[in-house]
Formats: sequence, structure tokens, C-alpha cells
Amino acid sequence: MDSQGFREAATATIDEIITYFDTLASRNVVSSVEPGYLRKLLPAEAPQDGEPWAAIQQDMEAKIMPGITHWSHPGFHAFFPCATSYPSILGELYSSALSGACFNWICSPAVTELETVVLDWLAKALGLPACFLSTGPTRGGGVIQGSASEAVLTAMVAARDKYLRETVPDTLEEGEREERVMVKRSRMVALATTLTHSSAKKAALILGCRFRAVRVREEDGYALTKAGLKAALEECKAQGLEPFFLAATLGTTDVCSVDDFEGISEALAEYVSPGEPGEVWVHVDAAYAGAALVCPEVQESTRIGLISRFHSFDMNMHKWLLVNFDASCFFVRDREWLVQALSVNQAVYGNKASDGGLVTDYREWQIPLGRRFRSLKIWFVLRSYGVKGLQEYIRRTIANGESFAEALRGRSDLFEIVTGPSFALTVFRLAAKTEGAPLEERNALTRALYEKVNATGKIWLTSTELDGRFAIRLMTAVRTTEKEHIETAVKTLVEVAEEVMRG
Amino acid sequence: MDSQGFREAATATIDEIITYFDTLASRNVVSSVEPGYLRKLLPAEAPQDGEPWAAIQQDMEAKIMPGITHWSHPGFHAFFPCATSYPSILGELYSSALSGACFNWICSPAVTELETVVLDWLAKALGLPACFLSTGPTRGGGVIQGSASEAVLTAMVAARDKYLRETVPDTLEEGEREERVMVKRSRMVALATTLTHSSAKKAALILGCRFRAVRVREEDGYALTKAGLKAALEECKAQGLEPFFLAATLGTTDVCSVDDFEGISEALAEYVSPGEPGEVWVHVDAAYAGAALVCPEVQESTRIGLISRFHSFDMNMHKWLLVNFDASCFFVRDREWLVQALSVNQAVYGNKASDGGLVTDYREWQIPLGRRFRSLKIWFVLRSYGVKGLQEYIRRTIANGESFAEALRGRSDLFEIVTGPSFALTVFRLAAKTEGAPLEERNALTRALYEKVNATGKIWLTSTELDGRFAIRLMTAVRTTEKEHIETAVKTLVEVAEEVMRG
Repeated sequence: MDSQGFREAATATIDEIITYFDTLASRNVVSSVEPGYLRKLLPAEAPQDGEPWAAIQQDMEAKIMPGITHWSHPGFHAFFPCATSYPSILGELYSSALSGACFNWICSPAVTELETVVLDWLAKALGLPACFLSTGPTRGGGVIQGSASEAVLTAMVAARDKYLRETVPDTLEEGEREERVMVKRSRMVALATTLTHSSAKKAALILGCRFRAVRVREEDGYALTKAGLKAALEECKAQGLEPFFLAATLGTTDVCSVDDFEGISEALAEYVSPGEPGEVWVHVDAAYAGAALVCPEVQESTRIGLISRFHSFDMNMHKWLLVNFDASCFFVRDREWLVQALSVNQAVYGNKASDGGLVTDYREWQIPLGRRFRSLKIWFVLRSYGVKGLQEYIRRTIANGESFAEALRGRSDLFEIVTGPSFALTVFRLAAKTEGAPLEERNALTRALYEKVNATGKIWLTSTELDGRFAIRLMTAVRTTEKEHIETAVKTLVEVAEEVMRG
Repeated sequence: MDSQGFREAATATIDEIITYFDTLASRNVVSSVEPGYLRKLLPAEAPQDGEPWAAIQQDMEAKIMPGITHWSHPGFHAFFPCATSYPSILGELYSSALSGACFNWICSPAVTELETVVLDWLAKALGLPACFLSTGPTRGGGVIQGSASEAVLTAMVAARDKYLRETVPDTLEEGEREERVMVKRSRMVALATTLTHSSAKKAALILGCRFRAVRVREEDGYALTKAGLKAALEECKAQGLEPFFLAATLGTTDVCSVDDFEGISEALAEYVSPGEPGEVWVHVDAAYAGAALVCPEVQESTRIGLISRFHSFDMNMHKWLLVNFDASCFFVRDREWLVQALSVNQAVYGNKASDGGLVTDYREWQIPLGRRFRSLKIWFVLRSYGVKGLQEYIRRTIANGESFAEALRGRSDLFEIVTGPSFALTVFRLAAKTEGAPLEERNALTRALYEKVNATGKIWLTSTELDGRFAIRLMTAVRTTEKEHIETAVKTLVEVAEEVMRG
């Protein structure tokens, strides 16, 4: 493909993308293909000779689009959003042209430096404490990771190594220290709650360390409390285990609950004083709800300033902040914690700037070596929308969540809200058909509602289970979702719920 | 930014990208900015109000481009390439518009299914044994990872868990099994060589497992041999350690050596029979050189069929196969090994297709949960170039490497080839100024050559150190590098070498 061929192909692709967004609402939100549909449509091997672009592009609409589930569809109320926006697409476009494995500063200084700057911009916009800024008092800073899973894994690795440095004497002879470290590791345990995202458990699996999920309860708003954490720490201690890491959450996946940061601080301070050897690293997973911190009222209601006592924080701009996947923004209070855990040298990567210690080499802040120019799309989105534009958008989607919940409350004969609306997420189930109806019956009816509504293809919902209660989650944070789409969702739910209730 | 604004912005961006590639050779290859240049040019905070695209785009050339090191520049001879191409850019463009967190099949069936199909296409094009195909006899298959680092980490986690399943009885009571597993883990050791990429050591650091690098020697062509591996296994055994993983390499970073796959098989078979409980998992890291397997003559010379005895294989299309970062193609012989190690369930991700076991959910094959639509760019590149087009390109870049080495050999008064050309990589140093010149002097002179040539800004080289000898690496695998650029590189090297030799 030469320059002219690319110009024509790219121009046509841009037209297709615009048409896609302009007509998105007319498609069904979830793909309805059968497993294995695509293999039947494609040859068994790559072609020997190159094909013209026209043939390739034709296959996009004919073969690929039927298998796409539309995450930007106004009826996408499942999981959390996975955003995109025009400025973000432009950032990705530049990035793909400037492809490089930018593991060291010298591999493209702009890739490293823009990342540092825009993550400082973001930290300020979110109202994070100054300790998470690259220019802050504790030599903190941010780095773009691929996903919140990689962020919690990176945090856990750094936490484990920090704990081992603090608790196993480095004066020991190397072999003896290795043995002591191995024994110590076998006693260490990572903590989370029963509503923490599964990525924390997966990180512990990868590290091969013990993991305990503290149960969170409805009466506490599904938040980890001081009492809950205190009891868990004591139980670990009684079993001879050593907690070194806690995954706290701002906006759990199931219900968007927020852990009690103050209570967590207090319980931990009573266990090991902050800053003392062996303190428990606290990672705040705000993958989805962290985006709402662009609004000062959310900074205040979540008391985000309290996280200055913690060690790391992560939020995904690719969820609710209009940047396309992937852009997980991970902040630490002291970047040396990452470098000490993740720095591995190899002769071929040596260069004056790195060896002089003057620059950031982000390979030392992450699991992979190479990295894309992901800060461009963040820069474009922050500049194109401005902080006010992002605030407006977040407030609009939160208001849509409130309208939705209000509509459900207006039909308490049909629905019972289980949690929320919290950060544009409402969790609900069918009202009891008769007073004191058994749980199984209510679960079965709610599941019937859930499946019938999803079968319409017009909206997509996901479900969860809370203390044995099957419940439906409806999220209103997609960029294209407007008031009218909420009304459609309510109308569909009411119709199907009436049908289900009738029997 | 509305549709019309996007159309204009994207059209202008495409023009810029074309101009960029058309005029790339006239730029200096490596950025010459000073550390911290960009912060001085940008505001300290994100703007409150949105900015017009014109202001943003202007900053690309004015502020970003000076900080870019050009990985597609014809004079980029450093590290390994990090490719891009027009069809690949189009794939990334579509992918950014169709943004989704496609962790499960239902999240966009096309994302999962196209990945399975194109990785089968790729495996066939590379001549990998059938056991690595999704349709093969051992239920193998491929998955796109972000980088070779993530691939080796994923392989090591799966290998550790497979080893533990095979060696710690699952009939034990859960608490007792956990204790036994902890003790076992503390004895397990991952093996690699002194020329294995640092990502293997980093993976072991992350897992918190022991790591040993077997020394590879010049007289063996810097390859791991049967004797070397045998000795290492015996040494581990003598120390009470249990090897469970070996990172073997096809194309080491420093010199592009290839480990002796047959010798490795034999040494391991004598240690634990293949398929028996406690066998050592062999991961083949072919991150760069694996691309050359599209040529049948390379499949033959590397005897790639031998890897059917091994467990996993990884190569990066984003290095030498014209797909932009990231596209690390990771294959396993039995996909259940990944699923058993990495599957973590959460109620909210439940759905009929997954629960029915009919589909692949790639989240169970990788560290992160979410994933982009990365197979599109692979599909576009394979179709646009065709297998023959890729073969031509690989052969051209290999031939360029041979021309370069030939030119060095023609000036044996100035240069000594240390290794290669191997897979378009030549490693060389300055010839001895006087017979029997001391190592330090030769190192200093070669380093002077290296630094002076890089200071010209016209070409970019990286260096390594082999058994104390400082050496220069010159790689000719970038898409835009033609014969004339090789001639320029030779001319520059000769001029500077003469100057250095003169003193």
C-alpha cells in the first residue's frame, strides 16, 4: 500500500467510522452470532499474494461488524463503559504512525515526558493528594498501564518487595537472605474484600502469595470498615500470617460501593504505624468511579484527600473518561518503590541519559519492557474537552442514573432497588410478587426479567449476586446515552417486568 | 468535536502521517532534546475550557516531534525494529473506534474469533508445529499479548502451576496443601541463559521465584547446548532446587544466536521424561527473529519443527513483521495450562456462552482482564502483503544485513565482526590497532567509534558487551532501510573508524 493508496483507504475508513457513530443506535447492542461464525467465513490460511484494500474493507462490514458488540451504543448498560471519542481516536492514529518500543527515555523523549505531564494534569484534575504528583513532596508520579489488572499486579509486586526489604535484614549473606525471603514469602498474605475486583485475587495467584477476601456487608453499604479490617488483621496474626497488601476500592464492580478510607487508615495505624517497617501497602482501585473525581463535589463526597495515607491509586481513563482502551492511569506515592521492585538491567539498553539518572525510564515502573505512545490520546481528550467539558459529561451521566433510579422507585410495585444509584450504576431486582415470597422465586423471576430484556437486543444489562440475591445492574455512563435512551430502558423493563409478574 | 470536525482533523492527520513517512529520512534519527524539555513548553494544568483542534495539532509538530526518536527511520539500526505500516495503522484506526474491553467472547465475538483465526494463519505461515494451532491435536492455540515480557510471564505462571499440580498431591486437605505448595515454591527455580532477554529474569522477580542464568559461550555460538543445560540441571539438583521452567531463545537480543533445541530436548528428556509429572516447561522466546520463519529456508535452518517438544512460543509481529506496537503472538501447546493458572471468576462476568463452555474467553489466557481488538491490524497486514510480500521484505532486510557485513569484511583493517550477520544483525568492534592490543584499549576505541557515529544523528546504533568485549550492534530490519542507507552507514562507520584509529 503506497501513500496514495493509504490516503484513499484512510479517508474511506474515516467516513465509515463517522457513519458508524451516526447510525449506531439503529444496531442491536449485543452481537447475536453463533460461536464459530467467523471461521466459516474466512480461508484457513493467510493469502499467498497481497490483496487490494477494497477486498479487505468490504469484509469489515460483511464479516466483522455482525460479530461486534457495541460498547458505545446508547443501550449499552452492561459492566462499565469502555469509552472512545473522536479526539482519542486521533491520538491513537498518531501513535500507530509513530510506533516505537519506548521503554527508555531516549527511545522517544516525548513519549516519556508527555506521559509524566499529562498524568500530573490528570492527578490535579482528579484532586489527588500532591504525593501522587511527579513534582510532589514524596517523589511520586503516574504511569500509564494497560489495565487495572496490571496496575494492581504492579502495586502488589512493589508492595511485596518493599515489605521484604523492610523485614528481612539486608546484612545477611546472599544465600541465607534468599532462604529467609522464601520463608517470609510463604507467610505473607494479600487482603481484599468480597467485592474487590477479581484482578486482586488474580494478582495474588500470579505472585503465588496467599489471599484473603474480607466479607463486606449490606448494612455497611458493602464497604470495608474499620471493624471489618481490624478483625481480618487479627485473624491473620492468629494464623501466623503477615498481611502486606490491601486492595481498597472506590466504586466496586458489583455495586459501586466505596470502602471507608478513614476506617482503613485507623485500623492499619493500630496494626503497624504508617511509615514503619512492615506497614501494609494500600492500593486504591478506582478503575471506573475514579473518573467522577473530575467533579469537585465527588472529591468532597469521597474525601479523596484521605488517600494521601495510602500507597497507590489507579483509575482507567478508558472506562468513563472518553479515552479508548487502553489507558489505565496508575499513581504511586514514591516511584522508587516501583523501580526497586521492577528494574532489571541489560547491556543493550544502556545509554547516557539513563545511566546518568537524569530521566525517567518507564520500563522500571511496569511489567512489560516496551510501551506505546498512549499519553497522546489522553492529552488530546483533556485539551479537547477541557476539565469543564469532562465535568459536564460525568454529571450528565450521573444524572441519567438518578433519573433511571427515580423511574424504578415510581414503580415500586415492580422493582426494588438493591443499591444505588451510585456513580451512574443502579442495582435492582423484581419486587416481591407476594409478601414474604421465597428467595428462589424472586431470583428466578428477576433472572427471567434479565434474560428477556437482554433478548430484545435493544439494551444490554449485566447481573450480579449479592448475599444470594440475584440482581440486575444498569449503568448509564456511556457517552451516547441520553435521557431518551433511559426512558426506552425503563419502558422495556416495565413491559417485560409486568409480563414476568403476570406469570 | 463533532463528525465534521473529526473528518477535517482526521484528514489533516492522515496528510501529516503521509508527509511524515515521505520525508522521514531527512530528519535526525534520534531526538536531541534535553531531559525536561517538554514540561517547559506545556501548562502546569489541563485547560478548564476545551481547545480547538487547530491548537492541538499545531503542538504536534512544534512540541512533540522534536522529542520523537524515529523507529521507522532508514538509519534506525538500534535494538530491534518496532514496526508500523499503512495497513497496520488502518487496523489500529478501526480498533480505536470499536473500543471495548473484550475479555469474554460475548463482549464482541469478532474480537475473539478473528484473533483465533489470524493466529492460526500466522502459526501456519511461520511453520510452527500443528500442536500450536487452535485446531491442532493437543488443544493448543495462540493469543495476542502486549509484549514478549507479558508472554514469558504468562508462560512462567502457567508452568509453575502445572508443576505444582503435578508434584503436590491434590488429595491433601486445603490448608495442608497450601503449606506444601508454599514449601515447594521456595525450592523451584526458573532457568535461562546469560543471553536470554531480561524479561525472563523480570518474570521470575514478579513471581518471586528463584532464577539461574546458564552461561553461554562464544565457542558454542552463544547458544545453550545440551552439555550446558545438563550441567545446570545437575547443579540445581545438588542444591536441592527444582527446575520447572526454561526460557530458550530463537534470536537473542545481543547477537541473534539460536539455542540448540535438539540438545535442550535431549538434556531435559534425561532429567524428566517429556509429559511426565514435573517435566520442565520450555518457552521459546522468538520475539524478534521469529518473524523470519515466514521464509521456508529459515524454518529449515532453525529446524523449527523441533519445538513440538516444547510448551510455548512467542514472537512479536510488532518488531519485524510490519504490525505496529503492540502485537506479541504467544502460542501454547495446551490452552488448558493457561486457563487452569489464570481463570478467576466473578459473578458479573457470567454469561450463557461462557458458562456453556462453547467459546474462548481470552481473559483466561492472559494477565489483564480487558483487551483491545488487536487482531485487526494483523489481519490487515497478512492480507495486504500476503505471505509472499512478507517473505520478500524479510529476505530484503536479511540481504541488507549481509551486504553490511560484507562491507565490514572488506575493511578488516578497521573492523572485526564478532557475530553475524544473523537475522539482519551484525555485531562488530574495531580491529586491533596493533597486534595483541589490550582489551581495554580496544573497548575504549570501539566505544569512541560508537559514540561519534551516534553523535552524527544520521544513524542510530546500540552496543553490547560480550565476555568483557564492548561491541556495536547494527540491525538492518527496518522497513524503510534500503541498500543506499546501508552504504551510508558503512561510509559513516569507515570515516569515523579511520579517524578513531588515527587517534
